[in-house]
Amino acid sequence: MAQKKQTIRETDDEARALARRLVSSARCGSLAVLLPDGGHPFASRTAVANDIDRAPVILVSDLSGHTSGLKNDPRVSLLLGAPGKGDPLAHPRITLQCIAERIGRDEERHARIRARFLRRHPKSALYADFADFSFYRLDPASASLNGGFGKAYQLVPGDFLIASPALESLAEMEESAIEHMNGDHADAVEVYARVLAGEKTGKWQISGIDAAGFELVSGDRLVRVEFDAVLEDSGRLAPVLAEMARSARARRG
Amino acid sequence: MAQKKQTIRETDDEARALARRLVSSARCGSLAVLLPDGGHPFASRTAVANDIDRAPVILVSDLSGHTSGLKNDPRVSLLLGAPGKGDPLAHPRITLQCIAERIGRDEERHARIRARFLRRHPKSALYADFADFSFYRLDPASASLNGGFGKAYQLVPGDFLIASPALESLAEMEESAIEHMNGDHADAVEVYARVLAGEKTGKWQISGIDAAGFELVSGDRLVRVEFDAVLEDSGRLAPVLAEMARSARARRG
Repeated sequence: MAQKKQTIRETDDEARALARRLVSSARCGSLAVLLPDGGHPFASRTAVANDIDRAPVILVSDLSGHTSGLKNDPRVSLLLGAPGKGDPLAHPRITLQCIAERIGRDEERHARIRARFLRRHPKSALYADFADFSFYRLDPASASLNGGFGKAYQLVPGDFLIASPALESLAEMEESAIEHMNGDHADAVEVYARVLAGEKTGKWQISGIDAAGFELVSGDRLVRVEFDAVLEDSGRLAPVLAEMARSARARRG
Repeated sequence: MAQKKQTIRETDDEARALARRLVSSARCGSLAVLLPDGGHPFASRTAVANDIDRAPVILVSDLSGHTSGLKNDPRVSLLLGAPGKGDPLAHPRITLQCIAERIGRDEERHARIRARFLRRHPKSALYADFADFSFYRLDPASASLNGGFGKAYQLVPGDFLIASPALESLAEMEESAIEHMNGDHADAVEVYARVLAGEKTGKWQISGIDAAGFELVSGDRLVRVEFDAVLEDSGRLAPVLAEMARSARARRG
């Protein structure tokens, strides 16, 4: 789109996997909106979670600068991916070009979006229900992935969003599945973190499950584990999680 | 500007000092531009340095997405301040609303801007002189400072930019002053890092000096030390640096 063709690589599975990880494991991002006074761009930091199809979700106050922009023009850009140590331009990041949609409190999806956001950001429970706060879902229309110097890709939403007939049914069982895994299978959760996510330290808990994988948190660390294939049937969740624990234990030896 | 009045605190010296530190010690930032195709905002990560008055400077390729935006509409927004550990919204950050100005290679200030940028980002020497790369100076028109929850301020450029008749003369002597300090006064530089910047580890070097202070680098760490008062005369630089070393040594005991 905005980059000349010769600098854009052909999208491959590695690029798609990187995009999925970046979109699903961001605790915060840089949100660019258009200000009402003539459309000057405005960049600010925002906490981020994901809806059941991996679309980003934000929680904003009517009193903040970005919200007056969002309300005036729904076109936003969201930059995800932390700079980390070393050269900040060597670390992968993704820019999502989105249309922001306010989630009304009377909408059915409000409860699930609120629950998913609060699991990612427990402290936001202090203000999430204040009258001036609203959740917005950011619907991606396109994305620019930068995997480091010279590794630029243009993605379409299908490259990283989750499509499955089981999205809703998995969302309905998500909370109980998380409680069950963290409560009754803490050993499996620990093995997921050590073997599948490669984490050496930390006490890990599952903080979110969807049709494509799950998130693990330890303090401020958030890591994402993807299933081998997207679940098409919520009945597959338990056997897939059990099989992942079995194979992870076998790999650990 | 975009935030309601009651949420904005009155700007005080502490807020100004925080803004100056954030603007002067960022290695990278999130840049929001307007894309040519209808003005959709676009956020991307960019390496950042500072001109002699602390205005941010970026180095961009004509092949990148943000540059086509910059060329089409000079209005940009730059978010500075790293999230760090813990709650990303608890960490201070500043959004600068700027007008971007391309620095032509034939302009007198090009050499100093290039030198300052390369000192901050030595690796960019590999591509800074490529034909498709250009420096842009981002002239701030206003700024939104967020010092953490409930600590929002609206700043004017005079709150954080450096004004002094000695800007140019200091820029002319900057390189030799840095070499002199790092070469002949490495002990003083070390004391600045330990005592004035509070750094416990690392091998530090001065990487930039202007009328308001200097930057120290150790690997990927960058810290800023401000003078007690802005220098109005470049002849004051040597005695001020000597006095700072003396008092820092005395504080260390």
